[in-house]
Amino acid sequence: MKPAKPVKAETTQRSMRAATLAEIAREAGVSAPTVSKVLNGRADVAPATRTRVEELLRAYGYHRRRSEAARSPLIDLVFHELESAWAMEVIRGVEKVARDEGLSVVLSESAGRLTPGRTWADQVAARRPHGVILVLSDLDDSQRALLTSRSIPFVVLDPAGDPGADVPSIGATNWQGGVAATRHLVELGHVRIGAISGPSRMMCSRARVDGYRAALETAGLPVDPELIKAGNFHHEAGHRLGLELLRGPDRPTAVFTGNDLQALGLYEAARELGLRIPEDLSVVGFDDLPVARWVGPPLTTVRQPLMEMAEAAARLVLDLGRADRAPGATRVELATSLVVRSSTGAPPA
Amino acid sequence: MKPAKPVKAETTQRSMRAATLAEIAREAGVSAPTVSKVLNGRADVAPATRTRVEELLRAYGYHRRRSEAARSPLIDLVFHELESAWAMEVIRGVEKVARDEGLSVVLSESAGRLTPGRTWADQVAARRPHGVILVLSDLDDSQRALLTSRSIPFVVLDPAGDPGADVPSIGATNWQGGVAATRHLVELGHVRIGAISGPSRMMCSRARVDGYRAALETAGLPVDPELIKAGNFHHEAGHRLGLELLRGPDRPTAVFTGNDLQALGLYEAARELGLRIPEDLSVVGFDDLPVARWVGPPLTTVRQPLMEMAEAAARLVLDLGRADRAPGATRVELATSLVVRSSTGAPPA
Repeated sequence: MKPAKPVKAETTQRSMRAATLAEIAREAGVSAPTVSKVLNGRADVAPATRTRVEELLRAYGYHRRRSEAARSPLIDLVFHELESAWAMEVIRGVEKVARDEGLSVVLSESAGRLTPGRTWADQVAARRPHGVILVLSDLDDSQRALLTSRSIPFVVLDPAGDPGADVPSIGATNWQGGVAATRHLVELGHVRIGAISGPSRMMCSRARVDGYRAALETAGLPVDPELIKAGNFHHEAGHRLGLELLRGPDRPTAVFTGNDLQALGLYEAARELGLRIPEDLSVVGFDDLPVARWVGPPLTTVRQPLMEMAEAAARLVLDLGRADRAPGATRVELATSLVVRSSTGAPPA
Repeated sequence: MKPAKPVKAETTQRSMRAATLAEIAREAGVSAPTVSKVLNGRADVAPATRTRVEELLRAYGYHRRRSEAARSPLIDLVFHELESAWAMEVIRGVEKVARDEGLSVVLSESAGRLTPGRTWADQVAARRPHGVILVLSDLDDSQRALLTSRSIPFVVLDPAGDPGADVPSIGATNWQGGVAATRHLVELGHVRIGAISGPSRMMCSRARVDGYRAALETAGLPVDPELIKAGNFHHEAGHRLGLELLRGPDRPTAVFTGNDLQALGLYEAARELGLRIPEDLSVVGFDDLPVARWVGPPLTTVRQPLMEMAEAAARLVLDLGRADRAPGATRVELATSLVVRSSTGAPPA
């Protein structure tokens, strides 16, 4: 049985009379309070009963009327992983909107899995937040159905996979950023330009490298697959792959690193090999974390407006929960912009 | 009327029969359910009634029996400010323990005030978390009484003020860290050693500078007040005060910066003045944020085990909430340690 997707359920409810809680209880052969308990994520329901009720809720595209759902003054914010300073910018953006609205932020980490665990979804159902923001993470179909049946809206921030047109999401113009970073290097006179990408399963990282390729091709420069390394957005990858790129016989004179942490790893690789930045090697990052201004030399990078994106995601998810304020677009990409500092210059003669 | 402090209330409850909810209701001239509403942070109670009930709860050192208080699977984590990477380490530590215990973390920022707002305390009372962890922040007496009367334990992490002996808290050996940083510079041969401290209202920042002084004095070196600047733990202060220190006629050959972000600001000041690190200037930070390894040159710093401290705070607050597991010590200082990297060396000849 294919579970209802959010938008689908919305349509269903408008076009035909939705099943009531009492009808679902009757069909499941349980009492209405038992169905309520399942909806509220209570633990005192037998697993088999719970599964049966959830299936019927999904099959009927049931979703709780908003007035029924006494919501807690909370927003759930779920991270794929809480590593980097990246996460901090997002937390601050969501926290800002939450504070303005008198809400608190519940933080979870899906601990490296790209969809948060089942227990997590039950907990969310039990605490009934105003909305859920997923960072670089997505829900599986049953989790979506679970949130939809409780009228808990959700928004994906900077999707790693392809969230589908029916999932509200906020991103940045990653492809455009890859173009701007690479074009800047081309304009400085670089011809051999390397790239260290993020993981290829993340759409944002593919988009950045595609932008890099497009800039090279439109400038009439060859794309050398030897100069493109697949990283993982961590400092260590920038260091390791940086050494690979820089130790070759015909090393690049510039590298676009896909994010700032990999740029810092590349800085370390350059230091180890005695290469000066920008005299021997130009480096462009992506993100514009606070640290980009503080390293030596200050890093030229593509600014991703992380805090503003997080604010936009928080506002969108709250709007989705308000019957009276239908949001306009449910897929928004905020613009990236190149910030030129001191890590880029003309190629060595 | 002096409100009961946590430990005090504990003693009171053990040594004499506590007032019941019904008795408090009678004395306040309201119904028992109204007292319950106040305890649960419900909004539908007249402000005057609420104040009267809160006063009686405090006067009687009332606190809700644990079995009465159906707690939510949450831990509250309150930051003074969410700036720096510092916060991220703490969040990760608390999140780790929370995940192990099946709890979620609610994050708030007291937005620059050193005690979180009154509304915040009401929200916490309403959501009934397992405990509250305050980072560089403290509660006023009425907030303490409010949490105590709801049996919501709290722990202060790395207290900024003096939390008092009756407040459970986790810190680090800041003074010892200041000694280790400065002694390292003395052993390298430095004589003119400057310091950029954090704000003097924070005990941790006072302790670090006191350690610096103690190390100089025990080495028989003079303490020059001109070489001690009061910063605020931000990058900008490190830069600004670094320029002040380095532009003087008899500039220091080494600086202990109080934290890592100020060290990065000092790096920038040195770059602007054409001073090389460590050839012309040695720098020691404090914290050992991830970025300390990534800057050029990698920063010698005092490692503060932030994640472990946050884990210890989370475990302590959960233990405080368990009748069956009385925690041993309620003031713990985890050890700091010097991490020598490449930003320190012998003074210029």
